Formats: sequence, structure tokens, C-alpha cells
Amino acid sequence: MSGGYRLKPAQRIAGGYAVVAVVGGLLLMLPICHRVPVSFTDAVFTSASAGFVTGLSTVTTATTWTPVGDVVIAALMQVGGWGITLVTTLVYLALGRKISIGERRFMAEDKNSGVRGIVRLIKSILYFSVSIEGAAVLIFSLYFHFHYHYLWSRALGISAFHAISAFNNAGFDLWGNNLEGFTRDPLVLILTSFLIILGGLGFVVLVELYSWPKHRSLSLHARIVLKMTAILLAAGTLLTLLFEANHSMAQLSWPYKILNAWFSSVTTRTAGFDSVPIGNMRDVTWFIYIVLMFIGASPGSTGGGIKTTTFYLMLKTTMATIRGRADIIARERTIPWDLATKSMVIFMLSMAVIFVGTLVNAVVEPHIAFMRLLFEEVSAFGTVGLTTGITGIIGGPMKWVLICTMYIGRIGILTFLVSLASQKHTHAKYLPERILIG
Amino acid sequence: MSGGYRLKPAQRIAGGYAVVAVVGGLLLMLPICHRVPVSFTDAVFTSASAGFVTGLSTVTTATTWTPVGDVVIAALMQVGGWGITLVTTLVYLALGRKISIGERRFMAEDKNSGVRGIVRLIKSILYFSVSIEGAAVLIFSLYFHFHYHYLWSRALGISAFHAISAFNNAGFDLWGNNLEGFTRDPLVLILTSFLIILGGLGFVVLVELYSWPKHRSLSLHARIVLKMTAILLAAGTLLTLLFEANHSMAQLSWPYKILNAWFSSVTTRTAGFDSVPIGNMRDVTWFIYIVLMFIGASPGSTGGGIKTTTFYLMLKTTMATIRGRADIIARERTIPWDLATKSMVIFMLSMAVIFVGTLVNAVVEPHIAFMRLLFEEVSAFGTVGLTTGITGIIGGPMKWVLICTMYIGRIGILTFLVSLASQKHTHAKYLPERILIG
Ligand SMILES: [K+]
Ligand SMILES: [K+]
Repeated sequence: MSGGYRLKPAQRIAGGYAVVAVVGGLLLMLPICHRVPVSFTDAVFTSASAGFVTGLSTVTTATTWTPVGDVVIAALMQVGGWGITLVTTLVYLALGRKISIGERRFMAEDKNSGVRGIVRLIKSILYFSVSIEGAAVLIFSLYFHFHYHYLWSRALGISAFHAISAFNNAGFDLWGNNLEGFTRDPLVLILTSFLIILGGLGFVVLVELYSWPKHRSLSLHARIVLKMTAILLAAGTLLTLLFEANHSMAQLSWPYKILNAWFSSVTTRTAGFDSVPIGNMRDVTWFIYIVLMFIGASPGSTGGGIKTTTFYLMLKTTMATIRGRADIIARERTIPWDLATKSMVIFMLSMAVIFVGTLVNAVVEPHIAFMRLLFEEVSAFGTVGLTTGITGIIGGPMKWVLICTMYIGRIGILTFLVSLASQKHTHAKYLPERILIG
Repeated sequence: MSGGYRLKPAQRIAGGYAVVAVVGGLLLMLPICHRVPVSFTDAVFTSASAGFVTGLSTVTTATTWTPVGDVVIAALMQVGGWGITLVTTLVYLALGRKISIGERRFMAEDKNSGVRGIVRLIKSILYFSVSIEGAAVLIFSLYFHFHYHYLWSRALGISAFHAISAFNNAGFDLWGNNLEGFTRDPLVLILTSFLIILGGLGFVVLVELYSWPKHRSLSLHARIVLKMTAILLAAGTLLTLLFEANHSMAQLSWPYKILNAWFSSVTTRTAGFDSVPIGNMRDVTWFIYIVLMFIGASPGSTGGGIKTTTFYLMLKTTMATIRGRADIIARERTIPWDLATKSMVIFMLSMAVIFVGTLVNAVVEPHIAFMRLLFEEVSAFGTVGLTTGITGIIGGPMKWVLICTMYIGRIGILTFLVSLASQKHTHAKYLPERILIG
């Protein structure tokens, strides 16, 4: 088993995702799925964007697809989300099996490894996602029916689509203007941000939080994830307020400025909804969001980017080196140096993909401002789905660059991670503990 | 002696550079130095820009300063250049003394260490710079006199200023429009680019090249520097042609397109001259230049940026990690992992400085496009001196941010490097050899 998780399954998953994207695209080409004609490129783009839980759309979801098409998209988002959660959790457990005490405790929960362990793991993933999404659907549909007077069928359908889209950090919407109609609706924005954050923490952290009342202890991984998530959310909110309070949010009162700055900060890493159009924001805010999108969510979640823990390790390594320390110490645990190096390698590879992709896009779309192209490329790489408004106007070549970028951002890092899982080093002083990166 | 190079001299140098910048600013405030009134901020900016061999100017050098002012600026560039060369070479030798065979051979050239060794080193630095600059002055003044019919006094003065500015990678000019008047002059552009490249290779490499006909062998450091310099120059030229041949260089014939693309590529890392206005270039080219400016020149030179060898190590580390190798191997030498980590730490710290500086500039200059602010900040950090054209219109706060950025880019990395010199690790398989980073 222990070797079983590694390269072969990674290749199977990589192939599986490619197949899902193409098959989904073919499904969406069926007449029953669309109201207006769609090209093969747009169908595959939508399918890939849903399956890789990105949320970029070259066509308007609300007006292009029939209810059947919407179901296909929702299914792609959900299957994509489950697949990513399963694989990243398996990688985490495979790594954890070798070293960590915190993770060993965790492993005890499916001690019977092999197929039975995986089946049990799949069951818990389903249990968590269905419970959380189910609760959200209940609240949303009551709210949309009674507050916004949607018919029950529409309230239920749109709530289910939205809950799946939010919890899986996908970012598709059925309103046609994303959440821009809910700028002054705290319930929708806060509940959505809650779903996004839960989905972005990663399954392993969710399980730990769930059992926290009983165990009263969290692994190093969980503590780092929670800390980084809090810091990044706070920083994103404050910087958005700093640059947008009197710009794109000028017409809002302060409580709503704060609400929307918070929501923007949440959604940027890596859900991809928006309550205030990104296209109306300043270019400096775009840059801040590029950084946040690049960092992304936490490992073992459906979110993308280099991940909060990778970023944490880079910061820790930098601090340890500046102070001339021989060890990277986090909360009385030594983090192996090779992990620090690997986090930086993930950073480098990600930058390289984005650099090359953006330059190609600059060649094929010479009339679009570079910042918009860079934003779009990072959004695709981090499977975020935010856009400055160009996704609908770009040509075929750039669409395919973005499809490839989404695929690499989703599968490339995953495969790389899985191959890393087979390498091992330790030089411990404190008890060593591994955290998941990438 | 061995401990003597380290922290204390670094602090002295850091203090020294700050004093030079302020004293230079006060000198430039003297009525004999300027033709038009200058503010204290502009005087210090010019002085810092010259002393840190950056070349950004808030005022037009040609029309603001008297010949005496020009001499002060030239002196600041030359003293700044010598100081940086001396200190980085000492750091290199201090590191080399511990490990490298190639460097030990090199060290033998001033085996009598201590004050006598330093005096000898200073003499060789002066010998190299004065010889190279002297030769350039000779050619330039003959050319300017006979070809452009400058008076001898003007030909000699402008040639001396230009040779110092080019060889020290400073980028100041006395023409008022930089080298934009020489777009179709191969002699000026090629000779200048030759001076820039020689100056950017670093003193230690120059010495090795000088003794190459005799020894017929180069150190790992020199080989990496030459290789990376060639790769970056070629990449910069090709990318500039790709994006600018039919844009800012549209009116030029192909030989001149190539000449100016080559010159732009050379000057971006980190001389800061321009033959084609950067402001006329596309934003994607700006981004490419931001990357090139960030990488910068080679260690032990007057150039800035994170340095070619740092970038090389990051690439090597990435490749070694992808291939699952336990060692970073370059030309049958093992490069210690801690050095790889340190190169990435330099990268991270540099990014952090630029990120913070640019955000502050976005706050104080809300009406300037973000790409221009980012370009300017990276240009200051890498002590490059290129600009998209905003240096003359920014307000006081941003001028001071740029002064601080130039100082950190120049002194901060240097100090960091010197403190790194006191740390040591090795785990060798091949014979280990250190190269200089930062
Ligand atoms: K997304
Ligand atoms: K310069």
C-alpha cells in the first residue's frame, strides 16, 4: 500500500482529470445542455473550469446553459472537488505515516489501510461535504424563497448550485452578475464566505476541528493552516479597505465597505466569487489579489495556489536563515530543511508556469493590458476564477493557454507533491513534524 | 583578519554609504554645482542615485548641474563603484578562504593578508577600472570630436563622465535624453554595452579573465557568471525583439532593431541607460525588464539585483529537487544545500522589500499606473535607473521611498551577505565549491 499511493495513482488522477474535462465538454455540447450555440473550446473551457473548480467563464453561465447544463456543471464541480480532496488527503496521510506523531494519531482513525481505509476515507469526505453543503442549501433556499421571493424550485436549485460552488471553492454562479446583486446582503455574503473558508481549510483540518471538542489538541499542520488563514484574511481585508474604500466601494457605507472588503479577501483565495466587480478596482488592488491568489488556500482542500503552508514555510525559512539558525523551529517542532527547499521549489515552478503563460498570452492578445493578462493567468493557475473582465473577450489561443494553466495549477502541483512523497530526509533536534506543502 | 571582514566593516560600509549620500547631497546644494534651484530632496536623491550607482534622476542631469556638479556626480559614481567592488570582493575572498580550491588559487595572489593584502586588492581594482575606463575615454573622445564635432573639452569631459557611468553601471548621462540620440550609432552603443558587461561581470571574474591566457582555467564561479550573463543577454535581446520590433522599434531597420534590442537587454541588467525610451515600450516588455532588473548583474560588480549566481542556484536547486537528487551538482562540484536555501532567502527578502515599497508608493502616488510604480521600485532596488518616465513627476514621499529602496538594494543585501559569510555548512560528495551569491 505505502508505495501504492505514489506515482501511478498520480498519473491516473492526472489522466482522469483530463478525461473528465473533455467528457464534460462533450456533454455540455449536447443540445439539451445549452440555450445558445457554444463552441467546442468554450464547452471544454467551462468543463475544465468546473472540474478543476476554477470558475473562470468564457460564456455567461446563467444565460448560456439549460438546467441540465447547470446540473452537469454542478456535478463537475462536485466530482472535481471530491477527487482533489481525496488525492491530497491520501498524499498527506502517506507523508504522515512516516513521521508525524500528530498525524499518526490521525492515521489511527483509518488504521485498516488499503482499499478498506480508502473507502472509509471517501465516506468521511462525502459525509463532511454533504452535511455542510446540505445545511447551506437549507438556509439559502429558505432565505431566497422568503426574502427574495424566488419560487421554491428556483430557490432550491440555485441554493444547491451555489452551495456546491462555494464549498468546493469553484466560484460559478447562476445570477449572471456573480454576487454583485448581494453587495448589501450580509447573510448571503457571510454564509458564502463561511462555506468558502471551511472548504479552503482542507479536509484533514476539518476533521481535526470536528474532533477538537473531544481531543482538545491540534496538529502542527492544523495550527499553521488556521493561523495563516486568519493572517491572510485580515491582511486582504485591510489592504482592500485601504485601496478600495474610496474607489470601487466609494458608494457603500462603512459597514458595507468592511463586509465587501472581507468578502473580497475571502473569495480571492481561491473561491473566485465577487460582490464588487474586480474590473472596477484599482490596479494596485489587482496586484495584491494576484499575490493572494498565488498563495491560495490550504492543502487537502479544493483550493489552489501554492498553499498557505508552503508560504508559511518560506517565511519561516527566511526568518531562520536571517537569524543564522540551523533549524526551522515552529512551536517546539523542527521542520526539515528539505521541506523548506521543496516549498521554495514549488514557488519557483509556479512562478515559471505563470511567467511563460502570461508571455504567451501577451503574444496572442497584444491589445489587452499586461496587468489584466497576468491577473487572468494567476487566477487560472490558482484555480481562483476572478477576472478583471477579459475572459469573455479573449480569443481561442488564450482560452487554451488558460485551460492548460488550470490543468497544471490543479494537477501539476499535485503530481509534483506525490512524487515528493517518496523522498525522505530528517535531522531532528526537537521532535520533527511534517506539515503538508503545495 | 578572518573575522575582521565581517559584521563590523559591513556596518561601517553601511554607515559610510549613508554619509556619502548625504554629504554628496549637501555638496550638490552648493550654488557652484547647480544652474537652476534644486531642493534638498532632489540633491540627496541625485547623490544617492550616483553613489549607489543607480542612475534614476528626479531632475535632468544635463540641464540642472554645472560642470562642477557633474564632477561631483562622476566622483560619487566612481567612489560608490570602487567601494562596492572592494567590499563584495572581500566578502568573496572571506568565503573563498574557507572552502574553494579555485578561490584558494585566487587567494594566493594576495597571500599576505591583512592591511597589505587589502591595499594590494585596492590597487588592482583601481588598475582595472582606470585602464578600462581610460581606454574607453580615449576612443569616445576621438569619436565624439571627429565624428560629432564636439569641442575637445566637451568631448573629453562627456567621454570621461560616460565611461565612468557605463563601467560602474551607473547610468547617468550628460546628453539630456540618455543615449536616445545614438539609436543608429553602433560604435557608441556597442562600446557602451561592452563597458557595461565588463563592469557587470564583477572584479573577481575580470581578474580571472585577465589571467586566463596564462592559466587556461576558470573557477566554477566565473564559469557560472559567464554562462548566466550570456543566457540572460540572449533572452533579453530576443524577447525585446519579439515584443518591440514592431512597436517602439517599428521605425528602425532590422540591423538597428537588433542593435537596440541588444543594447536594451544589456542596459536593463543593471546599467540603466536607454537608447529607446522605456516609456514607449509595451507593458509586457516592462514586465520582462522588471524580471531582468530583479536578477541584475553578477556579484563583486557594481551592478545590483539578486545577482546572476543567486538566480542560477535557484534554478539548479529547482532542477535537483524535481529530479529527486540529494545534491546540487554543477560541473562536477557539489553546491551546499544551505547556499541554495540562502539564495532563495535573498530572493524572498528582495521580493518583500519591493512589495512593501511599491504598495507605499501606490498609496502616496494614487494616480500613477501600478506597472510604472512597480517598474520604478524594482529599478531602484536593482540600482538600475531605468524608468517608464515618472521619476520627474513623483512627489517627495515617493522620492524618499526610492532613496531608501536604493540604499536597501545596495547595502541591505551586502550586509546580509557579509553576515552569511560567518555561517558554514558542508556535506560533500563531489569536491564542494562555493560560489558567491547575492
Ligand atoms: K475557484
Ligand atoms: K544603474
